Amino acid sequence: MPDIIVNTQFARMRSLQLECGKEISDFTLAYECYGKPNSDRTNAILVCHGLTADAHAAGKHHDTDARAGWWDAVIGPGRMLDTDRYFVICSNVLGGCGGSTGPSSIDQSTGRPYAMSFPVLTIWDMVQAQRQLLDHLGISRLYAAIGGCMGGFQVLEWARRYPDAVDRAVVIGATPSCSAYTIALWHILRRTITADPQWNEGNYYDNAPPKTGLGLSTALGLLIWMGHDKLASRFGRLLTNGNNYSYSFDNDFAAEAFFANIEASASTRFDANSLLYLMRTMTYFDLTNGFSNLTEALAAVRANVLLVSYLSDWRYPPEAIEPMRAALTANNIPAEHTILESDFGHGAFLLDPASLIPVVQEFLSRPTQRSANPQRTAVAMQVNPEI
Amino acid sequence: MPDIIVNTQFARMRSLQLECGKEISDFTLAYECYGKPNSDRTNAILVCHGLTADAHAAGKHHDTDARAGWWDAVIGPGRMLDTDRYFVICSNVLGGCGGSTGPSSIDQSTGRPYAMSFPVLTIWDMVQAQRQLLDHLGISRLYAAIGGCMGGFQVLEWARRYPDAVDRAVVIGATPSCSAYTIALWHILRRTITADPQWNEGNYYDNAPPKTGLGLSTALGLLIWMGHDKLASRFGRLLTNGNNYSYSFDNDFAAEAFFANIEASASTRFDANSLLYLMRTMTYFDLTNGFSNLTEALAAVRANVLLVSYLSDWRYPPEAIEPMRAALTANNIPAEHTILESDFGHGAFLLDPASLIPVVQEFLSRPTQRSANPQRTAVAMQVNPEI
Repeated sequence: MPDIIVNTQFARMRSLQLECGKEISDFTLAYECYGKPNSDRTNAILVCHGLTADAHAAGKHHDTDARAGWWDAVIGPGRMLDTDRYFVICSNVLGGCGGSTGPSSIDQSTGRPYAMSFPVLTIWDMVQAQRQLLDHLGISRLYAAIGGCMGGFQVLEWARRYPDAVDRAVVIGATPSCSAYTIALWHILRRTITADPQWNEGNYYDNAPPKTGLGLSTALGLLIWMGHDKLASRFGRLLTNGNNYSYSFDNDFAAEAFFANIEASASTRFDANSLLYLMRTMTYFDLTNGFSNLTEALAAVRANVLLVSYLSDWRYPPEAIEPMRAALTANNIPAEHTILESDFGHGAFLLDPASLIPVVQEFLSRPTQRSANPQRTAVAMQVNPEI
Repeated sequence: MPDIIVNTQFARMRSLQLECGKEISDFTLAYECYGKPNSDRTNAILVCHGLTADAHAAGKHHDTDARAGWWDAVIGPGRMLDTDRYFVICSNVLGGCGGSTGPSSIDQSTGRPYAMSFPVLTIWDMVQAQRQLLDHLGISRLYAAIGGCMGGFQVLEWARRYPDAVDRAVVIGATPSCSAYTIALWHILRRTITADPQWNEGNYYDNAPPKTGLGLSTALGLLIWMGHDKLASRFGRLLTNGNNYSYSFDNDFAAEAFFANIEASASTRFDANSLLYLMRTMTYFDLTNGFSNLTEALAAVRANVLLVSYLSDWRYPPEAIEPMRAALTANNIPAEHTILESDFGHGAFLLDPASLIPVVQEFLSRPTQRSANPQRTAVAMQVNPEI
């Protein structure tokens, strides 16, 4: 199948009131579209991306591109998100650095990059910005929203904050909140960047970016993201130099050489400050904040919900995801939780989507079931008092 | 019970042929002793320490010390390692920085610290050095050797390399080799130190040590070391400032504040280069190296072996430890594997020893069972051809 050739597009938005209390005005979202809207514009699927991805989810920008978009394996004619049937939209998040307004953008009031003066964002801010993009595209209702990890958090916010705008929600590898372990991990990942003297309190735009910190952060992030079994089966104790230990600090082990290469080749195209801001959104994510429990927190949802987890994803394990299924069911919201096997851990939805594809395809092909929760509309109006 | 007052002692050793092929001459080991040897010197227990510990396992050096030694909870009169019965010895490892010869020691040939010119060590080198210390102390046979993590690796080498010198081996939270995941993790932990410009290729002894790198490494190491459940129960999503998010990069979460404090207060007394060398010993640890399987690798053991693992220790999990029990049993070596519960993960043997104590006490109180492996002596002579 020939590659789809796509362009990243840019939409300029009106102002947005952020959860932190600040307002951001005149911001841009980068996005790509695959397939075409149908006549009544009811076939739109929003793809929400994870931490280091961007709007370029599928196809190529040029025939000569070495690689297609980050989720090309599942977006295209006849694929899981079938562009012959669906109008697929992927937007780079607010705060990202793939063409959307973020810390590396110019603050019009100073003529300089925002850097660390950019307002601190939340997942809900990202979703509000996406809602403006959909308005701009003339889409008032989504056939589905789908995403993994940070994208999954976005889908959860979509489903409960805009219940009338989402018919189906596919949430992959996302827990109802960021655990203590993950809070600590994001903290340390941020520190690997900010400990680099070149980070310079975020003011590196006139100089070299904090390449060492970005490299370390990328390597550590990937290690945490990969499953133990995948590392064991891929590398084991394989040596880079035959059967001999060098008895030195050289990268004797293939596992060392792999991560050394990840670190050395980490792109400085990804803006370090943007990474800090996006990691911060995830620590603040907590569905139950302002609610007394998860059932109450999810009571507004109207979408049919498919939760997907992976047995090897030790950071976002099935047992941390199942309570959302139970809470949705307690609200009479049609919800199912599918647990898949893959030794790619948290990265399975990107790197090993074979088992995901039929599950999502079947879910998307079904007509939605209606729930019958009398409190639904009332609860949908409830605003989290804390935020 | 009053604290035991102890002094660290120092033994100067003859030369040692290292696994890397180099020789180290005229080296020092720091050690402490608790209790007294009996008349026939058959009551000695060797305590092998983990990565960042030292010879000061029990008691205090001065009445006014704020804290006793690192394993004081289990060493003393009437305690798990009962100093009324046993002569307990703990030696700082070769390559350490607690008074033993290591990278921060002066290289007599240059008059300057070895720094990164120190030879790369292995667990077996540490054990050979300890054997010299025991010779120095007039101990030819150990009632028991005991240790966790890096200490557990040492006990395994003791048991199979000096089979006639060890009657009982207690191995806690130690796997038969370093997994790909752990190899990669040690690599990244080393990089958090070496990425600090103050590390300066190891030549920081005339200047400030790499405090930032040591802090990051300590924080990341502790995160990896702690169990997920422990972090969840201790911190959860607890905020440092009431119920409010600051929407900033301040340490809003108690889990963030905890690790920020760990990082900031990380001692620079621990020599950064020593840490690099000790981490390196663990990546090289592999019982089966030079053998065709684990059964063969452990065939020389004569000690009765107690393996202890913790369910919450995801880096050194019970399922990675059980194959050693099976291999020992296949060799007719009396071996048992006790799996304990604790939410302290890999640190349980230090921080939550309550469940460990009766298991070890009972094991130590038993007379040894003799195995009847006809090949034992022959295999004990086999030298790993790779090393």
